[in-house]
This record gives sequence, C-alpha cells and structure tokens, in this order.
Amino acid sequence: MRLSLLFLVCCCTVMRILPQCATAAKARHFRWEVSNMFWSPDCEEKVLIGINGQFPGPTIRAKAGDTIVVELKNGLHTEGVVIHWHGIRQIGTPWADGTASISQCAINPEETFTYRFVVDKPGTYFYHGHYGMQRAAGLYGSLIVDVADGEEEPFKYDGELNLLLSDWYHESIYTQMVGLSSKPFRWIGEPQSLLINGRGQFNCSLAAAHTPGAKQCAVAGGGNRHCAPVILPVLPNKTYRLRVASTTSLASLNLAVGNHKLTVVEADGNYVDPFLVDDIDIYSGDSYSVLLTTNQNPSANYWISVGVRGRQPKTSPALAILNYRPNRASNLPPSPPPPTPAWDDFARSKSFTHRILGLAGNTPPPPAKSDRRIELLNTQNRMDGHIKWSINNVSMVLPSTPYLGSLKMGLKSAMPPSSESPSDTFGRGYDVTRPPANPNTTAGGNLYVIAHNATVDVVLQNANALARNVSEVHPWHLHGHDFWVLGYGEGMFDEKLASAAFNLRNPPLRNTAVIFPYGWTAIRFVADNPGVWAFHCHIEPHLHMGMGVIFAEAVDRVGELPKAAVSCGATATALMAGNGGGHV
Amino acid sequence: MRLSLLFLVCCCTVMRILPQCATAAKARHFRWEVSNMFWSPDCEEKVLIGINGQFPGPTIRAKAGDTIVVELKNGLHTEGVVIHWHGIRQIGTPWADGTASISQCAINPEETFTYRFVVDKPGTYFYHGHYGMQRAAGLYGSLIVDVADGEEEPFKYDGELNLLLSDWYHESIYTQMVGLSSKPFRWIGEPQSLLINGRGQFNCSLAAAHTPGAKQCAVAGGGNRHCAPVILPVLPNKTYRLRVASTTSLASLNLAVGNHKLTVVEADGNYVDPFLVDDIDIYSGDSYSVLLTTNQNPSANYWISVGVRGRQPKTSPALAILNYRPNRASNLPPSPPPPTPAWDDFARSKSFTHRILGLAGNTPPPPAKSDRRIELLNTQNRMDGHIKWSINNVSMVLPSTPYLGSLKMGLKSAMPPSSESPSDTFGRGYDVTRPPANPNTTAGGNLYVIAHNATVDVVLQNANALARNVSEVHPWHLHGHDFWVLGYGEGMFDEKLASAAFNLRNPPLRNTAVIFPYGWTAIRFVADNPGVWAFHCHIEPHLHMGMGVIFAEAVDRVGELPKAAVSCGATATALMAGNGGGHV
Repeated sequence: MRLSLLFLVCCCTVMRILPQCATAAKARHFRWEVSNMFWSPDCEEKVLIGINGQFPGPTIRAKAGDTIVVELKNGLHTEGVVIHWHGIRQIGTPWADGTASISQCAINPEETFTYRFVVDKPGTYFYHGHYGMQRAAGLYGSLIVDVADGEEEPFKYDGELNLLLSDWYHESIYTQMVGLSSKPFRWIGEPQSLLINGRGQFNCSLAAAHTPGAKQCAVAGGGNRHCAPVILPVLPNKTYRLRVASTTSLASLNLAVGNHKLTVVEADGNYVDPFLVDDIDIYSGDSYSVLLTTNQNPSANYWISVGVRGRQPKTSPALAILNYRPNRASNLPPSPPPPTPAWDDFARSKSFTHRILGLAGNTPPPPAKSDRRIELLNTQNRMDGHIKWSINNVSMVLPSTPYLGSLKMGLKSAMPPSSESPSDTFGRGYDVTRPPANPNTTAGGNLYVIAHNATVDVVLQNANALARNVSEVHPWHLHGHDFWVLGYGEGMFDEKLASAAFNLRNPPLRNTAVIFPYGWTAIRFVADNPGVWAFHCHIEPHLHMGMGVIFAEAVDRVGELPKAAVSCGATATALMAGNGGGHV
Repeated sequence: MRLSLLFLVCCCTVMRILPQCATAAKARHFRWEVSNMFWSPDCEEKVLIGINGQFPGPTIRAKAGDTIVVELKNGLHTEGVVIHWHGIRQIGTPWADGTASISQCAINPEETFTYRFVVDKPGTYFYHGHYGMQRAAGLYGSLIVDVADGEEEPFKYDGELNLLLSDWYHESIYTQMVGLSSKPFRWIGEPQSLLINGRGQFNCSLAAAHTPGAKQCAVAGGGNRHCAPVILPVLPNKTYRLRVASTTSLASLNLAVGNHKLTVVEADGNYVDPFLVDDIDIYSGDSYSVLLTTNQNPSANYWISVGVRGRQPKTSPALAILNYRPNRASNLPPSPPPPTPAWDDFARSKSFTHRILGLAGNTPPPPAKSDRRIELLNTQNRMDGHIKWSINNVSMVLPSTPYLGSLKMGLKSAMPPSSESPSDTFGRGYDVTRPPANPNTTAGGNLYVIAHNATVDVVLQNANALARNVSEVHPWHLHGHDFWVLGYGEGMFDEKLASAAFNLRNPPLRNTAVIFPYGWTAIRFVADNPGVWAFHCHIEPHLHMGMGVIFAEAVDRVGELPKAAVSCGATATALMAGNGGGHV
C-alpha cells in the first residue's frame, strides 16, 4: 500500500499522465494577502483583518496527505503577521507553525512568507493569527481535511455544513491590548456579538418575535451582506455532518439546533466514540463534528443557536437558520430558539466534556506510563500594578527573537529572563479555593526543555482568581501534538488518587482541553515532534496576560530553518556576523 | 579655535578632569520606550503612541556639536517603529535618519535600536515617527539645539517658550490608513482638534465669551491634565523667543498672539533676516523662532491662537494663554482671540513666505550654478480605483527592504518596480490649471540616483487636483540636507524666466518648502551627504498616497551600516546567505 502510494506520487511528479494521479496526495497552492479593511461583521462597521478581501479568510479544503502551500503576503501597513494552522501538528515542519516569537519571525509589511506543510490527518481545523491579539481582529478561517481517497470516515452522512464560531468586540485590538497592559488594568469585558461564519447581529435579533424588547433584524435583502444571517440549506430525512470550530477571543459557547439531536463523532481532528446530545459546549480552540438528521417537520425551518457559557453572559446568542428545502429561507422558525443552558451549570458542562472518549479501534492508546510529569498551577496575579495570569507563579513573556531559531543556534542571551528550568511542580500547600495569599508574580519565559520521545504528563491545575469565589474556565491548546486527556478532577490534584483513576483505556485524543473552575485536567503526549511548541490558554486576553508555557523538543533534530523564519532579531544578527567577508 | 576645541574634547574623553570640559560638546543619552497608551489630548480619550508614558514625547535639549544617543525600545505589540529627527542632517550617519523602508529596518516589537547622531547646528527641531502614519498617532516631540558654549545667537532674548503644534483626529490611524487605501477612497477629513504641546480642547472653547454658541472649557482644576490649557508665563517688558514647530498630519496653521507683534528670526534651524509680522503661517514640517516683546498692558493676559489656513477650516483654533505674571493664569484675556486670516487668502500666505530670506553674513550663499535640475510635477491621480498623489505620474511606493542597505549591497531585486531612472522632467504640454486629462497613474520607487557633490535644483510644480478648481498646498521636506529656496512662481514653471529671477543673493536655507496652489517652488542643494534621503510632501495622508521621491546619494561612500539597520528583508537574507558555514 505504501509502495503503491509512493508509486502514484512519483507518477504525478514525474509523468503527470496517469489517470490514477488524480487520486494521490497533492500540493494545494494559495496566494493570500492579509490586510486591514472595513467590514461590518455584526452590521456595525469596523476595521478588521481580512485575507484577500474576505472575512473570515478563505476556507482551505484538502485531503489527508496533501501538502498545503500558502504564500502569505503581509499587506498591513506597520504590523507584522503570522498564521497558525490550529490542530495541524506540523510534523517535520515546526517553522510553519505560525507562532510569532516562537516558531518564526513575524512577516514584515510587504513581505511574503511561504507556509508549506502536510495535513496528515482528516478533520475539522482552522487557522488564525498568532501575534499580539490579531486573531481577535478577525484573522481566521476554516481548514477542513477530508479523508484521503480510498479511505472512509467511520460514520456516514449525506451532506456537510460548516460553522466557524467566534466572538466580536467593537473596540479595536489596539485599545484592548492597551487596556490589558494598563495601570489600572482595564478588562475587555464581554463581546458585543457572537459570529457564525463571521456574521452576527448587534442590537437586533432574528428571533425578535420570541425575544421581548428586541428589534427584528433584516433576514434577507436590504441588509448589509457582511451581516446577512447564515442560512444552512438541508433536505428532509438526510444526515448532515456539522463541522463546528470556535476561534473566540473569550467566550465559551454552546450550540444547539432547535428540535434536533446531535451525535458527536469528531473532536479536534480525532474520531470519538459517538454519543447523542441536545447541544454541545465548545471552548475556544475546540472543533467538533456532529451528525444531525433532518427528521423533523419538513414544513418548518429551525434555529441554530449559539450562546455563551462559563461566564455570566452579556452577549445575545448568535442565530442561524437551518433551512429545510424547499421552504423559503426567510420563513423564520415558528418556535423560539433553543435556550443556552445556564452559564454556571458546570455540572452539565463537565458531563458533556467527560463523554468525549476515543473511538475504539481508531484512537491509538496512550503509553502506559509517562517519563515526566509537569504540573502547571494556573493563577491570576499582580505584577507591578498590572494584572497577569501566571503558571507556577511565572507570567509568560515572549522573546523578540523566536525560540526555534535562537535555541537551534544556542543564543541564550536572546531568551527572556529566567527562561530556563521553570519548575515541574508547585507547592502542595497552595490553597486553590482562595485568592492567592501572596498575589505577586514575576515574568519569565516558561520554557520547558523536553527530551526527544519522552512521554510527558501535564497536570493543569486551576485555582481561585484574585477575587474571592471566582475561578474561570481555561481551554488549553497544545501546538505540534495531539494529547490524550487522561482525566479531570475537582480541587487540588492528588497524585495517588488521580493517577489511579486515569483513563488509559479509551481517552480521547485532542489538541485543546479545558480546565473547569477549581478543577484539574491531566493530559499525556509523546514528545516525538522536534520543534518549539506553545501550550497556552486559548483565550486571547489570557494569553496576552501571560497564560502559557513553551515546550522545546529536541531542537537539535529540527531540519534547516527557512531563512525568512530567522531573519530578525538575534538570529539575524548572529547569522550576519558569521558572514566573515560581508560587512555592509 | 578649532584646535582648542579639539583639545577640550580630548581632555573630556581622556582625562575628564579639567573644568573646561563642562563646556565642550558631549554625548546626551536617552532611554526611550515607545508604547500605545490611553490619552486625552483634547479631553476625549483615545489610544495614541507615547514615549516613556508621555505625550508628546520628551523634549531633547542639546548644544550644537553634541552627540545624541537614543536607545529606542519598541514597546508596541505587533508594529514596527522608527523615529526621524526632523531637520537634523545626519552627516555621516544616514542610517540614523529614522525612515522605515529607506534608512533602516523598522524596529520590531521588544527590540531596541540605538540612534546616535550629532546635532551640528543650533535650531528648533522636532522628531517624529516615519512609518505608516505613526506620526499622526502622536509619535513626536521637540528637539531643541542651543548654540555651542562660547557661541552667540545673532539676536537677544530674555526667555524662551516652546510651542509644538499638531492636529488631532479621533479616528485611529489604522482606520485612516484603511480609508485612504480603500475603494472607494475615504478621505480622512479635517482634524477634530488642533493641539499646542499636545493639548487641545474639543467641543468647547477657552474663549467661549467671544465665541457664540461655544461651551466654556475648564481653565484650571477639575479638568483632565492631558488637555489642560497651555499657560505660557512671561514677565512684562522682556523679550521672549517663541520656538514654534508644526508636526501636523494635514493642517497648515497660522499663529498669532493677541496685541503682540512677532519678529521672525529662525526658520528650520537656520537664521533668517529678521522681519516683523502680526502672525506667522506654519506648514507641516516647518519650524520657526519668533521674538515677542511683552510690551502690552501688564494687567491682562493675552491669547495665543493657532488656526487652520490653506484648506477650508472645520477645526476650531487652538488657544493658549500668554500669562503676564503676576496675573493669575486663570484670568482669561479680556479681548477676543486674534482671528486667523482667511484660509484662502493665498496672497497673504505668499507674502509671508516670500519675506523669509537668509541672514546676511550668516547664511552661506548657494553655488551659482546647478549640475542637474529635477522637475517634479505634483498631481492627484487614479490607480485601479484608488486615489493617489503622483510625481511625474508615478505614485511612490516604498520597498519592504530599506534602500540604504539594498543599494549598498546592490540588491536590485529588492527595489519596487520601475525604481530606476525616473524622469528628471515632465511634458511641458501638461495643463496645470485643469484636472489631469488622463488621470491614470502607476506606482514606482521614484528613486533618483544623485552624483556625489552635485549641485541639484529641484522644481516642485503644483497642478490642479482631480476636482476642478482645486489645487492644494504641499509642504515638501528634504531629509539629510538643508536647501536654498531660490524662488516661487505662479502657473507652469518657465525655465528661462524663472531661472533669471532666482534669488542667488540671500535665499533662505530650509529643510521644508511649500508649493502654493497652481504654483511652483525652486530649491537648490548640494549632494554632499552620502545616504538615501526621502523628499516628500509632509502631509501624512499625502505621503501615504504616494507623494514623494527618494534621493540616493553616493551610497558607496556610506560607512558600515549597523547590523540592526539591515536585519530585515532581502538585506538580512543576503547577509545570512553569505555565511558559508552557518546553515541554521
């Protein structure tokens, strides 16, 4: 089988004549230009970051095994840019992970950087900016990988619908970033709108008939095309795959479809043991596929409702219309939109999350034991009048010279202070149920050096924030890897009790895992992908406030870096200095 | 004299013991961090770019011959930054001119670049951002150079007052830049406020008693310190030197002091033949010193009023208070503020400008003849649905790799299209009194290569814009040089008539010269400063729309460039490639 695939690839490359070539993995080329543009995602005009004049950016659709080539031109005027391919492991191409300060130099204005990487695994992915808070400025889009030709999904469906969920603020990210860095601190607050495929409605509701006091939004015609409601056409008595991903800046979401049940079949590009639910929770950085059968009264349309969970919601749900054809899309559903579960019903949230398990016969089991355990205490702290998030009492700052280059070249002076040897654990005396006794924190690189092929457990330990009786939800996302989620627990992680209860039989493989308030989450991964990988809370302002760590993995085994990935800062200077004859 | 100065410098450097050392030229060190911050320049809170938490940035005060050393850290989150030292010729240090895409790589976030240059000539200068439209975001401050110890100004005064003038928009520069680049084009409009030393008042007037319908602004106390009125304390019967500079984004200004006459003594860091006026016009990029004698009724205070000229004004004048001590500053002047002359009284404007002449015995005369004449036709054009300003029908675009490095290394591929050999003239058939017959333009580098030590005349030819009966004012600023202003004229430049009338006897030396509507201005300079120098309209949106050219002057004679100035783009890649043994 491998030989024959190789044969086909050779055919395509060398001869380009055999009809079978159409079925082999191929390179998919894209030319993108990122730029600021006027857009009205929720009918209020703002400036956002688009790609090729579109928001959200173009959807990439590929087949497993394909090579994606994106020539990304930065058309911003004074800002650098990078794009992270969320969920793609970048095996052998860590310089294409698209993380500023970590995997590459930010692309300067008017420069072009070529991302070239293999999408090795089918699934529902997305991409987004990973510099400052540019994701929250609208720099994102969908990346969907189908199974390779000749392969089959472990479930059947008749059609497919794609929903990329996000939240939207009317303040610019510049203002947001200044506020988060200011003394006194200014929180960004709750988003003004939720968006489905980049569209939302502010100050009106599509379901005004069911929403006391709300103004009816235009359903079609007359409206601004940027914020026209999302219509999802379906035929009765079919089964659809809904691909759902969340790239929110802050909000944890819940998605429900009026009158319809959903069967969860995929999470973060990995198949899961199917289970039936009324709605799904989806945290920033998550993606899911759910199957929906159009078995309801075909004379009506139905609401798709996306609301906020996990924080007291101040944002109206986003609505889309599941349009049973041949009904007109403008026939609004007669029933009220399905209500979002109570924001603080964490028992319900946990129940959903705990049901996500690996698909037997498909999900590889984790190694039985780990070589190292890294415990990461998540706390909210103060530093010199600022408010920060810290990991083991160090708030992450990123270097101006990206790690992948500086580590490969051994430029230790390019690292942030105290980057080396952060602690693998934290004092067990810490009381996670109360605000920190000593709220002061420091800044550092939080750079963990991981041995090649080590099996690593990470315990993410949540705690009380600065205010009493507050502990927040944090979805942590790992770059360069999927991980098994071994278990979730309440309160302080207890090594003996917890380890004994780890699920080593059918844990799900994911790239994002949530920690619930006052709880812990344990994950396991194998450090088999040389590179430098971010591991961080996917909430944009939390990352900006320092909530992350870096895993440097066998950097000596990383291949030659593209020059453009290191042509900045200390790596550029060092390489230029190495040029004996070439004083400028 | 020169020997003794050298002796003193040596003393200071080597021995640091002689008391005379205090009087010699010295290095003045500054550590600055640029960052976004909340500020209320006109009492409305916005985000602007400040330095060390201040807006405007810190004033640099030095003596002629001093070396200024500014370690500039970029504390912006995703934007590059540079600072241009406006009026400083950077003799021998062209990499310190602070022009992105021209003299250096923009400083990346968290990086520090050290500007080191000599302020060789006393005068009133300022500094400002020169990347995108960052100047308009508030990145500016004053740079004042006193005469060297033992030297004297050619006029006397008892005290000094400094007024840095600017205009202020409530829309962010990001929104402004998107609008200017959009199809359809969106003009930025007139500024919301004028600022004196970074302070203005929006939606109220300090002189409400004299301004029908206006609300009285708070004069002291209770107000926001960011927008507290500027109070200039003086004693009666003294002579003050007012230093006035304009770093406006758009507005041409006029400054008057109620009841007081002004004697103009300096323009752009060069002494001028003193002349008495009621008020001064000041265009963006200009600086002046005027003497004011406090010979009026000492029991009153007086208004300083700054209003808009040259464009139909929609912005209220900025007011400051000349506070005759011991009167209280809060005693508002009893008279109405001096009115700004009619915006379109260009005869009056020209009369003022034409009176600015070199100071006999001080201003060196220009070479009698030039080696080359470059004629630059200024037109407003269309390009692919965009609106642009063009020079000889090419709208300037800047390269991602700065010219100073790419020219020194011979990297022609790093230049914009058609950078080489732009035209030294334009067709005499062009009708400057009408909109362009063919409004279409193209983009290019507008890179003029100038021979070392050539004497160059430049004729700036104004024309009608796209709309009928519109021709605008454009203040052109030259980097790296002062130039003599040889003459101004109306309509199409006529070589024979004009050359014969050139003032070669006492033309003023300046770094900024205005072209009036439908007119021309002729300047002369000696290309004796190897480097790459921008020459452009100082109106920020006009430059953004392409209104400029580049003079590359004997780049082969430029000394070794600091690595940080070339560690981006094609220069970084080329230098890294030259590093035979050092694959990353």
